Amino acid sequence: MSRLPAVWKRLSSTFTSRPAPPKTHHHAPILDSTFPKGYVLNGVHCGVKKTGALDLAVILSGTPASAAACFTRNAFKAAPVVVSEDVLRRSGGKARAIVVNSGCANAVTGKQGMEDAWAMVRATDALVEPSKAGEPQTLVMSTGVIGQTLPISNIISGIQSHSASSSILGSTFAAWEKAAKAFMTTDTFPKLRARTFTVNGKEYRMAGMDKGAGMIHPDMGPPRPSGQLHATLLACIMTDAAVSPRSLQSALTYAVDRSFNSISVDGDMSTNDTIIVLANGAATNGTAQEEIDEERDPRAYEAFRTELTNFAADLAQLVVRDGEGATKFVTVSVEGAATYEDAHRIASRISTSALVKTALYGEDANWGRVLAATGSVPLSTPVDPTRVSVSFVPQDGSPSLPLLVNGEPENVDEVRAKEILSVEDLEIQVQLGIGKESAKYWTCDFSYEYVRINGDYRS
Amino acid sequence: MSRLPAVWKRLSSTFTSRPAPPKTHHHAPILDSTFPKGYVLNGVHCGVKKTGALDLAVILSGTPASAAACFTRNAFKAAPVVVSEDVLRRSGGKARAIVVNSGCANAVTGKQGMEDAWAMVRATDALVEPSKAGEPQTLVMSTGVIGQTLPISNIISGIQSHSASSSILGSTFAAWEKAAKAFMTTDTFPKLRARTFTVNGKEYRMAGMDKGAGMIHPDMGPPRPSGQLHATLLACIMTDAAVSPRSLQSALTYAVDRSFNSISVDGDMSTNDTIIVLANGAATNGTAQEEIDEERDPRAYEAFRTELTNFAADLAQLVVRDGEGATKFVTVSVEGAATYEDAHRIASRISTSALVKTALYGEDANWGRVLAATGSVPLSTPVDPTRVSVSFVPQDGSPSLPLLVNGEPENVDEVRAKEILSVEDLEIQVQLGIGKESAKYWTCDFSYEYVRINGDYRS
Repeated sequence: MSRLPAVWKRLSSTFTSRPAPPKTHHHAPILDSTFPKGYVLNGVHCGVKKTGALDLAVILSGTPASAAACFTRNAFKAAPVVVSEDVLRRSGGKARAIVVNSGCANAVTGKQGMEDAWAMVRATDALVEPSKAGEPQTLVMSTGVIGQTLPISNIISGIQSHSASSSILGSTFAAWEKAAKAFMTTDTFPKLRARTFTVNGKEYRMAGMDKGAGMIHPDMGPPRPSGQLHATLLACIMTDAAVSPRSLQSALTYAVDRSFNSISVDGDMSTNDTIIVLANGAATNGTAQEEIDEERDPRAYEAFRTELTNFAADLAQLVVRDGEGATKFVTVSVEGAATYEDAHRIASRISTSALVKTALYGEDANWGRVLAATGSVPLSTPVDPTRVSVSFVPQDGSPSLPLLVNGEPENVDEVRAKEILSVEDLEIQVQLGIGKESAKYWTCDFSYEYVRINGDYRS
Repeated sequence: MSRLPAVWKRLSSTFTSRPAPPKTHHHAPILDSTFPKGYVLNGVHCGVKKTGALDLAVILSGTPASAAACFTRNAFKAAPVVVSEDVLRRSGGKARAIVVNSGCANAVTGKQGMEDAWAMVRATDALVEPSKAGEPQTLVMSTGVIGQTLPISNIISGIQSHSASSSILGSTFAAWEKAAKAFMTTDTFPKLRARTFTVNGKEYRMAGMDKGAGMIHPDMGPPRPSGQLHATLLACIMTDAAVSPRSLQSALTYAVDRSFNSISVDGDMSTNDTIIVLANGAATNGTAQEEIDEERDPRAYEAFRTELTNFAADLAQLVVRDGEGATKFVTVSVEGAATYEDAHRIASRISTSALVKTALYGEDANWGRVLAATGSVPLSTPVDPTRVSVSFVPQDGSPSLPLLVNGEPENVDEVRAKEILSVEDLEIQVQLGIGKESAKYWTCDFSYEYVRINGDYRS
């Protein structure tokens, strides 16, 4: 076959992957005292994962907590999403517990899936005092393969092993870490963060964990009155501040738009994406604490919302750092747009472009692909090509590298470009020169490893 | 580093590619008599490509032809797109020639780029009789790297070598083939088709060529009154039917929506996408031919539009078959939608899903990913999960394989699934069960080879 084009000859060859930097440093011990008060939790292996890895997390609050959540807008909502929405509606924004399994998403599982999700709620409810009106108090999340039913008896046994008498629940770093590990699917490290913050001179704590490495392009909104929705990004954040349920929901909705809804690994929205926040007011050890509420004290509310947004952005970025096959962590900043939505839409398009992502993997300063992606988005105010500038911004504080200035290509210093592209962290900055609005998105590159992971996920 | 997760250990390994089937059989000789009358053409190497491959095509019509075009909707319109739009406006939908270079897109090249594109038009205009009012008669297309200026003196010399005295222009298969080869960039075979068709009992011919392997997710519309637009899918179709300029444009706009605007290789829209149609009325050898026109004879117009749509779909599918790194050719059919737009939007989303495309490369019957993609699209009428069915339809006439029926997963015969997935051609059929509208999209899989091609395109 001497007429076979050169590209075909290459096809039977092998590809040597540029190895990604190890990411284990993104997980490190946290002081026990940094975790919010009033929560006990644990992670165990109950038998969903064949590997014997942790696959069930139980998180309990000592008292009923305000609860808020955002769920995927996918039309094929997994059973745990439908059930958690229902629990929040019935409880009026209150919850005592969260139960999470990994290894099976309980999505597209019909009536059996709904029964299983409810069974998880009831088994976890039995670990805490019954609520006054008998309404459910547990929010449930599942992640893993779609279209398979849960090994529900294993899961129920696993939940029951957390009874008060067993005392396997804890509040130390080790307990939080086990819970975080039980969230993991293709994640390469557990994603756990905690911090102390101050509102109105009072000190509170916030801790959270999340998971996700693939099927990551969330678009989550607050619960809807009736179920037509769905989420595989899972996150939960616990705080010992007291926040009214209504204000907790509005703060979360704002925070999610600027964190989890601004990340992409592969551009695919899951049927299970869920983020839950609990606020139990335990910071003051039983002393009555005035609830943070938007109407009563807008300044305190805004301070809390800022804390929550920054914390959620930290957690969301961990997911991108651990993106399937990712070797780069890339911040896409779009500035000078007419509206936040325009900026967000362009940032999202650049972050999902296969050509941009493969160029990042190849460490190639191919700004033409950034520009083509920018130009392909329909906007409220059209882009004027003569006003657009594109730069690479290194994250070490060294000077940024202009690639295009007011629509004219720069004479790029390719050595400097290679240098900037050779490290893990990079920012692509697009200045539209139209208005004053901006948005950030976080994404990763597209590697051979991504294809490998997703070419034989089920086998 | 014994605590390094298993996935990291794999990262430094190599990946063995599943070789794609050879595609040279998609290019075969065509009888000289099948090509439309009244066109002469050629392809030469003028010096844009460093490899010495053909990089300049010239196509001339013996008489002024009706001309219509669709251009990319990207905001960063390449110079040849801006110029071709302008030529069409000035000439009132008439043209005598098309000139095409590959190897350099002349995109984001500022004023120099505009001057170069006009220089190509003028040099080609000089090969034919001047028009009565002196307006330009040549449409221009470029494809290749963005942000570099053309080696314009080489190109002008190349165009001038086609003067009448040189007689290097021809009308045989060999001439058409050379022109088609001069379109190629990362294409692995020239894309050339011709056919004979009948409207109102009269016989006509149509021939066309196109190129494209990456940055393929066109969204093209008719020319706009003023320039705010842009396209790297290039196609031209020549017919010896006589069609009024107005009807040629409306037929092309309809055809492009159902062909070139329904294909995706990587989901990235180019700055140069252009499709041009010429209709010179030469079928009758100088005898006056009544123009096909929508108002005068709607039935003849519809017959012509159907021919053009089918022909354009054939050409568009060739681009997907040759998609960068592609080993599969996949038809995505969405049926039972409330509107054509809803069906088209879902088909587009499935066709661009990285998870669906890597599963196809892995020959994995992962219908959950098809469903997640389906559910992520905002629609005029929301999807009802209990009415949705998904099947794999083999293209050899053997029975299709239901994966999901009315929202319930089937007990899939994995052996049969593997069998269907192991061949190059496959149809994914999604039935929404809401309305009567449907749309088709054509896409390919995502392979190691795709990452390799695009990770070091410029080097």
